[in-house]
Amino acid sequence: MSVRVGILGATGAVGQRFIQLLDDHPTFELAALTASDESAGKPYREAAKWRVDTPIPVDVAEMTVRRTDPDAVPDDLDLLFSSLPSGVAVDVEEDFARDGYVISSNSSNDRLAEDVPLTIPEINPGHLDLIEVQRDERGWDGALVKNPNCSTITMIPPLAALDEAFGLDRINVSTLQAVSGGGYSGVTSMEIIDNVLPHIGGEEDKMETESRKLLGDFDGAEIEWHDVDVAASCNRVPTLDGHLENAFVDLAEDDLEVSEIEDAMREFPGVDLPSAPNQLIHVFDDPERPQPRMDRMRGQGMQICVGGVQSTPHGVKFNCLAHNTVRGAAGASLLNGELLHENGYL
Amino acid sequence: MSVRVGILGATGAVGQRFIQLLDDHPTFELAALTASDESAGKPYREAAKWRVDTPIPVDVAEMTVRRTDPDAVPDDLDLLFSSLPSGVAVDVEEDFARDGYVISSNSSNDRLAEDVPLTIPEINPGHLDLIEVQRDERGWDGALVKNPNCSTITMIPPLAALDEAFGLDRINVSTLQAVSGGGYSGVTSMEIIDNVLPHIGGEEDKMETESRKLLGDFDGAEIEWHDVDVAASCNRVPTLDGHLENAFVDLAEDDLEVSEIEDAMREFPGVDLPSAPNQLIHVFDDPERPQPRMDRMRGQGMQICVGGVQSTPHGVKFNCLAHNTVRGAAGASLLNGELLHENGYL
Amino acid sequence: MSVRVGILGATGAVGQRFIQLLDDHPTFELAALTASDESAGKPYREAAKWRVDTPIPVDVAEMTVRRTDPDAVPDDLDLLFSSLPSGVAVDVEEDFARDGYVISSNSSNDRLAEDVPLTIPEINPGHLDLIEVQRDERGWDGALVKNPNCSTITMIPPLAALDEAFGLDRINVSTLQAVSGGGYSGVTSMEIIDNVLPHIGGEEDKMETESRKLLGDFDGAEIEWHDVDVAASCNRVPTLDGHLENAFVDLAEDDLEVSEIEDAMREFPGVDLPSAPNQLIHVFDDPERPQPRMDRMRGQGMQICVGGVQSTPHGVKFNCLAHNTVRGAAGASLLNGELLHENGYL
Amino acid sequence: MSVRVGILGATGAVGQRFIQLLDDHPTFELAALTASDESAGKPYREAAKWRVDTPIPVDVAEMTVRRTDPDAVPDDLDLLFSSLPSGVAVDVEEDFARDGYVISSNSSNDRLAEDVPLTIPEINPGHLDLIEVQRDERGWDGALVKNPNCSTITMIPPLAALDEAFGLDRINVSTLQAVSGGGYSGVTSMEIIDNVLPHIGGEEDKMETESRKLLGDFDGAEIEWHDVDVAASCNRVPTLDGHLENAFVDLAEDDLEVSEIEDAMREFPGVDLPSAPNQLIHVFDDPERPQPRMDRMRGQGMQICVGGVQSTPHGVKFNCLAHNTVRGAAGASLLNGELLHENGYL
Repeated sequence: MSVRVGILGATGAVGQRFIQLLDDHPTFELAALTASDESAGKPYREAAKWRVDTPIPVDVAEMTVRRTDPDAVPDDLDLLFSSLPSGVAVDVEEDFARDGYVISSNSSNDRLAEDVPLTIPEINPGHLDLIEVQRDERGWDGALVKNPNCSTITMIPPLAALDEAFGLDRINVSTLQAVSGGGYSGVTSMEIIDNVLPHIGGEEDKMETESRKLLGDFDGAEIEWHDVDVAASCNRVPTLDGHLENAFVDLAEDDLEVSEIEDAMREFPGVDLPSAPNQLIHVFDDPERPQPRMDRMRGQGMQICVGGVQSTPHGVKFNCLAHNTVRGAAGASLLNGELLHENGYL
Repeated sequence: MSVRVGILGATGAVGQRFIQLLDDHPTFELAALTASDESAGKPYREAAKWRVDTPIPVDVAEMTVRRTDPDAVPDDLDLLFSSLPSGVAVDVEEDFARDGYVISSNSSNDRLAEDVPLTIPEINPGHLDLIEVQRDERGWDGALVKNPNCSTITMIPPLAALDEAFGLDRINVSTLQAVSGGGYSGVTSMEIIDNVLPHIGGEEDKMETESRKLLGDFDGAEIEWHDVDVAASCNRVPTLDGHLENAFVDLAEDDLEVSEIEDAMREFPGVDLPSAPNQLIHVFDDPERPQPRMDRMRGQGMQICVGGVQSTPHGVKFNCLAHNTVRGAAGASLLNGELLHENGYL
Repeated sequence: MSVRVGILGATGAVGQRFIQLLDDHPTFELAALTASDESAGKPYREAAKWRVDTPIPVDVAEMTVRRTDPDAVPDDLDLLFSSLPSGVAVDVEEDFARDGYVISSNSSNDRLAEDVPLTIPEINPGHLDLIEVQRDERGWDGALVKNPNCSTITMIPPLAALDEAFGLDRINVSTLQAVSGGGYSGVTSMEIIDNVLPHIGGEEDKMETESRKLLGDFDGAEIEWHDVDVAASCNRVPTLDGHLENAFVDLAEDDLEVSEIEDAMREFPGVDLPSAPNQLIHVFDDPERPQPRMDRMRGQGMQICVGGVQSTPHGVKFNCLAHNTVRGAAGASLLNGELLHENGYL
Repeated sequence: MSVRVGILGATGAVGQRFIQLLDDHPTFELAALTASDESAGKPYREAAKWRVDTPIPVDVAEMTVRRTDPDAVPDDLDLLFSSLPSGVAVDVEEDFARDGYVISSNSSNDRLAEDVPLTIPEINPGHLDLIEVQRDERGWDGALVKNPNCSTITMIPPLAALDEAFGLDRINVSTLQAVSGGGYSGVTSMEIIDNVLPHIGGEEDKMETESRKLLGDFDGAEIEWHDVDVAASCNRVPTLDGHLENAFVDLAEDDLEVSEIEDAMREFPGVDLPSAPNQLIHVFDDPERPQPRMDRMRGQGMQICVGGVQSTPHGVKFNCLAHNTVRGAAGASLLNGELLHENGYL
């Protein structure tokens, strides 16, 4: 009765997180791993330099890595998770989907494509049915589903809560992002010790566009993007994991109490999926929280933390935090995989 | 012909910076150092744990530290710099001013007092004449002048440039502040390694209020605060020196080119004082700059760096950086001291 | 049937670790918490600023903190753990022991006293019987047992293995110690970011003397210290937890293979106590391990990791690592408490 | 009258330091820059990503980068500095020397070759005459001279002082090395934040062998290596610049006072070359010094700092520090270049 899953790009940082999160999963059984051609044919423990803070699962260590190609992967896989580099993913994911595979992908390509669902199960599960449009248009048996960028996903839950309760007009957001978001070798120590990098290529655009698609309406044919204005400034800081963000939000409603804001967030419903946290948003009363090192692992790294909610002359400001390689990457794809399963797409 | 100066609170982090910046000063001659009663009577090299990155000046090392009391300080000092803890400064600075001393203070007390000038020489030098009001009301022979908080001073020059050119409507700003801003022992290593602290007590208020006073108009009798709305979120990050800030600004004028914004900043005039940089604001074309470690010492730590200027749906966003213990503290008071001298107040 | 235990100095960093480690302990039941007079009378959640990375246990949060005084603590406690500052502990621990309490203490006072057992259960459990001498000489019903300093405990297991197998002649050791060893506020961020502190007051002496007592022989009356020569250089580095040490050891036997050295360590026996790791020493083949962040939590933070074993012209060199606030502090006292229980001293 | 110099491998981290140190040099005039084929033909400012903390010299910015080939470089260059990757340098440096160029190289290849001088001007300037042997054997008009590895050079000056005064028997040394030693991209932030890397490939060997050659005797025909035993353990720590080392040394003489040790170091003579510090070794009385961030720039980064000198049961222990990319790399080659000039080899 278990669902057989594979991982495309299994040796990288996000690939390793997939393996960690799939260990002891109640429904998903890991059955195939792919990587670059140089790794193909090797046992996983040789192909990957394991860097996650829990040991490599014993059976995974001995699995043979396959080429990242539909012909090299068993036909009976129900679901593929993808953490391929986007330059590779853009072709490869389509090859797999055309070949009948259902893919839940963390890669950044195609997130804004009109017929590709970009989903967070707690926020816009209904967008998943864009798969029907996708299959019609592309003639695929498979499907391609995306989750948003780690910096986007950190702020969307509290913003969705505010949108539903009071209406969103405008967002300015500043990020303090962890180095793991750049991949294992993405940020050198010479760049970041005693420093901040005030620019992350493409990141601000992702936050500004993905947010509007995520918060948009799906009428069964297409997504109408939300018309909220978003301006983002993205910074890399010397933390290992956990993106912290300062949001300044104008709401359609005025004169709200801080407690009303906090209640809207606390009461925002979660979903009943194996990897979802009981409560989606945890709101701290203590203005000194959330902090990346202290709070990134709340809810097994899947909860969104909020704090420092305060009124401003035009709305509200608050801080939010999520674990960027769990909730912001592998955990996000995993949750979308669980939603695909729940909704009968596998 | 030299001006004899003293330092109140000379053993702390900002006190040490004063000593460093006064070494070889063209007009100011350091003639007295004060500290707490336990330090009084000791040679400075014993009283202070010297932590600045240049050696302690030889003659300063042997100066005897005095009590922080008007009776313990020579009468012929022309100017006192103060970096006392604000809880102490609130009474002591008034004692000195009443006794006839002119004080350029970095301490946070009294910055918003109606008859205390809060000045940056390049921004609002005319506010200095509030000293006349102060002397009338308080019956002082001396005077008390303040510089703003380090997080405020970082953003004010570019904002003043925009205000003058286009008019300011609204500011959201997020800060990434260095640990030195908390004093030598203010931020523990256990708090900040692999972490961010999303709250700095009182800091957001300072940015929101001091900015409006600094950008305000002085009619000879009182300061009319600027009516710009400011909302700030302040964070402590693991950098040693240099506050980086992300500003989102709504302007009174629409549809401006990025180049117009940058030109307004680049062309904003400086002042002709010994410690002032030739150009007040340096604007980088490279969106990856300014960075704290690379750029904090531009203009001997006295220049304001700006980068990442971009349009947003409602105005403009940019990043700015200043050295928080030079331009943001000791250097700010020093420059006010030079302005006091230039304007004949000593 | 459970053993009722208390914690002296429960609000500090080591006190919090005691609480974390005692949560769900199979035999010990936490029944009392003491702290300074200012904290007495408050619920623990108010008295302590909780900083451990797991939530404060719900029942502990509501326990009322007591004064650190025999009169303020229930008589029926079987065992007290102490993490008092050594300046306080020197008198207070004796008061409690005189009053009949058995104390397993992490404080540094009295570790070298002739009639105080300094024990690591896997290394010198027989030293515990020095309690008989202690009770005779001091007329106590209670007892005082100590564990060594965190920097000592990191290297002793591999050294004891080598001593038993080949005989120890001489040790040079260099430490790279985490900031948590200095207590929550012991090392400021200004001191340690982009820096190393090459001196930790008293630390080198502790390593040099405690090691010789720990490895010494107990003849039923007194400990004869081991005559190995130890020279230590201690450094603080910018890591949060986990002391790494480079040891250079001259052995009584020559021409040993690296594999013989490693086998002696791997095969060194553990003990059967609830908090002891299955295997005391884990030896890595990979010369790049152990690393503090990757390996400090092995065996729930109670295992000693060794790597980089190599021959030198006069013996052997290796690296070792232990979690300084678990195996090196609270966990060490806890294990001694379990040994006291096992040996019938409670 | 000036000496025309070139830099082989000018775009890397050490190449940039060469450019910085040659700016305003009293005798050397920078006349050529080489790099990889992709960079050849570009102006230097485009070919190099400038990362040094002083601005790129204006005239250097516009110099055209050449291929790293004798045919691509002017014939009239008197001296070449090399910071090529050792895999490239092994052939290229020989090509240049054969073609008549004199090369002062920081690359690690050939340092132990019998006919290649490995020199530090203050320690073994006489070894330079091995060039005569080299020219005889290889039939070169040019010459190849090397400086030691950064971790070696840090400890050699104090060891040479002790060897001359008291005789060296044996050395155990542990290093705490900065990330810049691994090159700009050598150490990732994910590896080193909150961590230590206990292994640097090849580094321990370099310290053990280069030291014996440097301290050896040259009889006009060959170098007789010193017979001191050296065992080294090398660690990478989260500092940017400055290698700190803990040395444990057995001396031929016993029962020395700490003051005798310190005097031998303080009085060790320097050399009269433009880039040499006035005093080679600075000895701190304060056991808390030297520290990397506070002391790496002493003597413009060319001085060796020593502290924490103490007796041990078998000799002495001390800490030493040098700036690894100045005294330990570019500055070391520059000083050898000045020695070549002084001794008439150019």
